Amino acid sequence: MPGSPFAWIDEQARARRRAGLVRTLRPRPADSALLDLAGNDYLGLARHPEVTAAAADAARTWGGGATGSRLVSGSTELHADLERELAAFCNFESALVFSSGYAANLAAVTALAPHGSLVVSDAGNHASLIDGCRLARGTTQVVAHADPEAVRKALQTHTGPAIAVSDTVFSVDGDAAPLAELAAACRASGAALLVDDAHGLGVLGDGGRGAARAAGLAGAPDVVATVTLSKSLGSQGGAVLGPAHVVDHLVNAARTFIFDTGLAPAAAGAALAALRLLRREPERAARARAVATALYERLTAAGLEAVRPDAAVVSVRAPSPEGALRWAADCRAAGLAVGCFRPPSVPDGVSRLRLTARADLTEAQIGRAVDVVTATR
Amino acid sequence: MPGSPFAWIDEQARARRRAGLVRTLRPRPADSALLDLAGNDYLGLARHPEVTAAAADAARTWGGGATGSRLVSGSTELHADLERELAAFCNFESALVFSSGYAANLAAVTALAPHGSLVVSDAGNHASLIDGCRLARGTTQVVAHADPEAVRKALQTHTGPAIAVSDTVFSVDGDAAPLAELAAACRASGAALLVDDAHGLGVLGDGGRGAARAAGLAGAPDVVATVTLSKSLGSQGGAVLGPAHVVDHLVNAARTFIFDTGLAPAAAGAALAALRLLRREPERAARARAVATALYERLTAAGLEAVRPDAAVVSVRAPSPEGALRWAADCRAAGLAVGCFRPPSVPDGVSRLRLTARADLTEAQIGRAVDVVTATR
Repeated sequence: MPGSPFAWIDEQARARRRAGLVRTLRPRPADSALLDLAGNDYLGLARHPEVTAAAADAARTWGGGATGSRLVSGSTELHADLERELAAFCNFESALVFSSGYAANLAAVTALAPHGSLVVSDAGNHASLIDGCRLARGTTQVVAHADPEAVRKALQTHTGPAIAVSDTVFSVDGDAAPLAELAAACRASGAALLVDDAHGLGVLGDGGRGAARAAGLAGAPDVVATVTLSKSLGSQGGAVLGPAHVVDHLVNAARTFIFDTGLAPAAAGAALAALRLLRREPERAARARAVATALYERLTAAGLEAVRPDAAVVSVRAPSPEGALRWAADCRAAGLAVGCFRPPSVPDGVSRLRLTARADLTEAQIGRAVDVVTATR
Repeated sequence: MPGSPFAWIDEQARARRRAGLVRTLRPRPADSALLDLAGNDYLGLARHPEVTAAAADAARTWGGGATGSRLVSGSTELHADLERELAAFCNFESALVFSSGYAANLAAVTALAPHGSLVVSDAGNHASLIDGCRLARGTTQVVAHADPEAVRKALQTHTGPAIAVSDTVFSVDGDAAPLAELAAACRASGAALLVDDAHGLGVLGDGGRGAARAAGLAGAPDVVATVTLSKSLGSQGGAVLGPAHVVDHLVNAARTFIFDTGLAPAAAGAALAALRLLRREPERAARARAVATALYERLTAAGLEAVRPDAAVVSVRAPSPEGALRWAADCRAAGLAVGCFRPPSVPDGVSRLRLTARADLTEAQIGRAVDVVTATR
């Protein structure tokens, strides 16, 4: 009789414990006294009464779930409204909503990288883009982080369909991709550009209309963007934005669209309400950026090593995985929730505290956050 | 200047049109006069007032979204409650909730199939399991559909970690996997068994507690199950159920858990309410099965070729992709929504109408559905 088929899991768990890399879940209560600089609710809309009321209304009107694939029973007029308004807001021709940003990225990369194609992928890309590359039938070439020249060279080696793939704002350090230069590199070879604007929508561009629009690329025939509904829009889900024939192609070819249940009506309703709020209050985007800059300037003035934020993510270096964990725990004990990024979530192995700037933070809250992070260093 | 980077997409679209395989979205209104046998709302709970009220309450209490990864800010006490009650209901030690069943399957397969391992995968498995196999570092061997002997032979060729992967109820034909025989084949080689109970939860087993429990496998140290919250539970999301150390492993290793935003509170609340409803009204599961049997018996008595349903899915053969599409359209014109499965959604290339039995269908509705399907054949 052989032993447990999961004995190898226990070995890995022991190794993780020795390395100080164990992750555990910490469920939070509905009303926490913690000041939250850990989540990605950049505009402070997740708990906005208009957003939560829209989620509640959508659930009552449309049901608790979409009941099936978007191609069978899972497309409601609410999904169609969200897609129409999202595309218009970001200046793309068409949009397609998914149950998560992860699913949207898997869909976009796999559907746009057929057999015989080349995918040129930034070394700092999000896990979902990397998994998309691994699932795609095309060949992937990983290039140096934020290096348009490397993208240009990689594309020159290839004949046939090709696409460059990049986050617009990288999730670990909050730095922005050189979108205009990437687009130029793609166009020189007739390649397409796919950008993941998860951290740009709601924060970058005129009124938060996103990084692609800010770079003058939104609506271009050779540009596709993905966004998430779960960060600035305070909900759940993701979307692919692009030319209508590209979106039609995804409807027909993207496995995470065809074989997944549609986004729950409550999430579609919440995202749509947040989008309308942002359209009405475009100053929220600039405020999120200003809060990030304020956090960065005060933290570096206090001698901490941080990356100048291009959007709403402020990344602060920690001495080690254990040090980052202890630092984050000390912040928490002092009433401040911050993110703690350790291997394997960081590509370069450098652990960080990660602070997210929320548009709704007050000056007093910004000051308190800086005080806690510096006092617990 | 090179041409459009998406010219190949237009070629594929033309080929799809010629083959009659174009898919288009048909957004539905909130109140449709159609009798719905297309969705996967097996227990009729998606629009149950308790379920939609729970979704609305959760949105108001917890916000429109989870605001971050489950490991950062995205775990609420509501997620923890859902995980505890779901595990207890299905008789597993532990549960972990994901933003979709697709994400849960990607997580389970990739995290349980490390480098050097073998994955033995049923040829009829769902797209999400197949994508999980393609993403996993282990080697995949695809075996004949529902063939425990083939699984046994494949596992015998391998030393090192191994896992067999199978749907419990296959989505296309609604047939059940031989779970007891699969478990025996796995145990003979010390391999683990991973089953996707998306179509079993709420329908199979005592009070809808799922196929693994019905087969006496729930809670076994070598068995892991995935479920969806978007079918019988009328919501959105998925979960992995298994031994606690396996779930802890997923928390630490599964990329679609670590790098995805947590399930929206409204979806978690809806699923939890549906689960409690099912616990209180266990007869819903048997009713869904009885409705499926009634549909099957009356359709075959009328001369149609259908597969005897093992759960709540009734699959009826169509003459061709175009024939299936026309048949489904004629049903719709007569007031009945049915699923229409065509290539590439069907592994064997055979097009089908797909009817889902809902526990809340009346005898009159069953009769009307059979009348419409037979009259439009």
